[in-house]
Amino acid sequence: MNRFVYLDNNGTTRMDPEVKKAVDEAENLYGNASSMHELGRDAEALIEKARKQVSRLIGCEQGKIVFTSGASESNNTVLNIFRDRIDDKVDGRDRIIVSAIEHPSIIETVKYLKSRGYKIDLCPVDHVGKVKMDELRKLMGKDVALVSVMTGNNEIGTIQPVAEIAALAHSYGAYMHTDATQAIGKIPVEMEKWGVDYLSCSGHKFYGPKGEGVLAFGKGVPFTPFMHGGHQEQGYRAGTYNTPDIVGLGVAAELAMRNLKEEHDKLWHLREMLREGLVAAIPDVVVNGPTEEKDILPGTLDMSFPCAEGESILLYLDLDGIEVSTGSACASGSLEPSYVLLACGIDVELAHGSIRFSFGRYNTEEDVRYVIEKLPPIIARLRKMSTRKLHK
Amino acid sequence: MNRFVYLDNNGTTRMDPEVKKAVDEAENLYGNASSMHELGRDAEALIEKARKQVSRLIGCEQGKIVFTSGASESNNTVLNIFRDRIDDKVDGRDRIIVSAIEHPSIIETVKYLKSRGYKIDLCPVDHVGKVKMDELRKLMGKDVALVSVMTGNNEIGTIQPVAEIAALAHSYGAYMHTDATQAIGKIPVEMEKWGVDYLSCSGHKFYGPKGEGVLAFGKGVPFTPFMHGGHQEQGYRAGTYNTPDIVGLGVAAELAMRNLKEEHDKLWHLREMLREGLVAAIPDVVVNGPTEEKDILPGTLDMSFPCAEGESILLYLDLDGIEVSTGSACASGSLEPSYVLLACGIDVELAHGSIRFSFGRYNTEEDVRYVIEKLPPIIARLRKMSTRKLHK
Repeated sequence: MNRFVYLDNNGTTRMDPEVKKAVDEAENLYGNASSMHELGRDAEALIEKARKQVSRLIGCEQGKIVFTSGASESNNTVLNIFRDRIDDKVDGRDRIIVSAIEHPSIIETVKYLKSRGYKIDLCPVDHVGKVKMDELRKLMGKDVALVSVMTGNNEIGTIQPVAEIAALAHSYGAYMHTDATQAIGKIPVEMEKWGVDYLSCSGHKFYGPKGEGVLAFGKGVPFTPFMHGGHQEQGYRAGTYNTPDIVGLGVAAELAMRNLKEEHDKLWHLREMLREGLVAAIPDVVVNGPTEEKDILPGTLDMSFPCAEGESILLYLDLDGIEVSTGSACASGSLEPSYVLLACGIDVELAHGSIRFSFGRYNTEEDVRYVIEKLPPIIARLRKMSTRKLHK
Repeated sequence: MNRFVYLDNNGTTRMDPEVKKAVDEAENLYGNASSMHELGRDAEALIEKARKQVSRLIGCEQGKIVFTSGASESNNTVLNIFRDRIDDKVDGRDRIIVSAIEHPSIIETVKYLKSRGYKIDLCPVDHVGKVKMDELRKLMGKDVALVSVMTGNNEIGTIQPVAEIAALAHSYGAYMHTDATQAIGKIPVEMEKWGVDYLSCSGHKFYGPKGEGVLAFGKGVPFTPFMHGGHQEQGYRAGTYNTPDIVGLGVAAELAMRNLKEEHDKLWHLREMLREGLVAAIPDVVVNGPTEEKDILPGTLDMSFPCAEGESILLYLDLDGIEVSTGSACASGSLEPSYVLLACGIDVELAHGSIRFSFGRYNTEEDVRYVIEKLPPIIARLRKMSTRKLHK
């Protein structure tokens, strides 16, 4: 019988049973948290507790935490704040810089802004996805309003020098945003220590509920709401509070902080075990992204298998009960090769044939051994069928 | 011992046990619905089922259904589409008309747009909250891009002549949006029959999960995404699918459609029983909103008690386990009198002292009798304490 091995944890995670329990309990407090009656006030108290749990996890003690529907909304919100400021000519700054390998909710939003005449620069990355600091320095100027660089990449796991970039941005009077969605629960995230002004994340990437995320922002930084309406969140974000999921997000934050070191080490161990096993068992594999533990999110392993299509590999693995991705889930549905790999200067053909294994809290060594057993014959079969030849 | 009587169902509802069961089951399909692996594909199939359930409920067979984080987002999305079109001078139309008693997620968004130089008109309503059709006709013109009028009001329950307004808008070449959040599950909602181009609603107002809503739109109407990012929802709305809550929303839609007539009649019966009981037991009460069954959402009862403060009434009722609202939850947190009641021409003092009772699926006649027993002495006590005198 097939095992079921879920290796798409960068896509989304399964809710932790402790989170699920908290969500279920909070559903009894179904009252509108904006209402003054008891049910409303009790719901509000739970929300404030969750806010504290999240602020501890991301190191945002002075700033504010606003609950959103997820990191995509948080990212859109930040870019919209600067769209408004540019329109209003608040300080004459009218340029936004983002890295070339940001998540689609940044990349597509700046494309949209660019199509409407806003000045956008994509900062290039090196062959492992790291922002080229010399290029970023060249791009900086007194006309830059915002720099947005993610903490860790969703496809290849590259960790960016966020504190260094924030210092550079600030030295030019620009604000700094980081999308920390993939980093949360895997490496320490310290918003205030890093000098970050805005930070986005999503609960479902660290065993919290789907549809619930966070936008944190520093004291006194510019803010205009993206979603207008009710007085919720002190006017920062309208919409009825999703009390149960906010409570779940708080518990997920608590768990993530409690087990951070252990989880990091476990993910890295499994990732390295898989990498070594596959490199030994399959000829001509290419590992994408950084190689050093300190430079990469521990659970991410992105590999290309020359002369084997990524999509075919995925479907064969699926038949064996192994669930992986080709690049990011948010970019899937398109037949384009990964823009993240292309930005790293990786050959189009290799970029097309990449597989992302992403580990999570529930994976085991047994899972890794199963993949090492199942994948090599799949690659061999696909290569045999391929009209292309390996260049040996 | 106190009963617990929840009469804030227009604020939010408790999830139906059938919905909860479906949400819990769908949580096992935790994979990213955008992923190609089995877990992802299974999640996607469930989402498409929910989409069909919702489209049947709201009468949107030809158009599209996009899942959002709730009606606030849906409303913001529609106004943003027209902001873009006005900016782009697509057809020279540059004016938006909304009724004066729309939900804050419309009212605050058009205020924001107005502050940025967009042309906005608020259409007045009569003393029961109905849009004044003659005033609307005067406001119309070939420069109007969008008319947005809610199906039923959240505070006083007024049902608007949406089909008539849509026909008027179309006769001038304008598009029509209705926020049907409060109407769903209480009266038949027939988007296409009414000629509505855009329709918003939220799951948590009809026993579905919080944080999940819908934006429906007709074939060929203008659309630009509000939330940019991944390819989800055919590019109409970015963000990881909240599969469990989408499934829950689908089941809630199914239940709402199945029991529509019975629920309507039950809500109306309880509402009328309470109104008659309170009018008989308390001197000088004012019932706000329409009186005829056909003109009002059946479960809404908004009343003012001269010489008694709304907030004080709410807190005393809370001590007796009765949960109500002063006006809308989305407008609470402010000490302003209800803008909805003021727009109806109701005196500031009365508007300040209004209480909204809103019935739902789980209320009983016993609940009504309990309120009729508890409220009169509260009003008498507050009036005794009041420095104001009843004008008899």
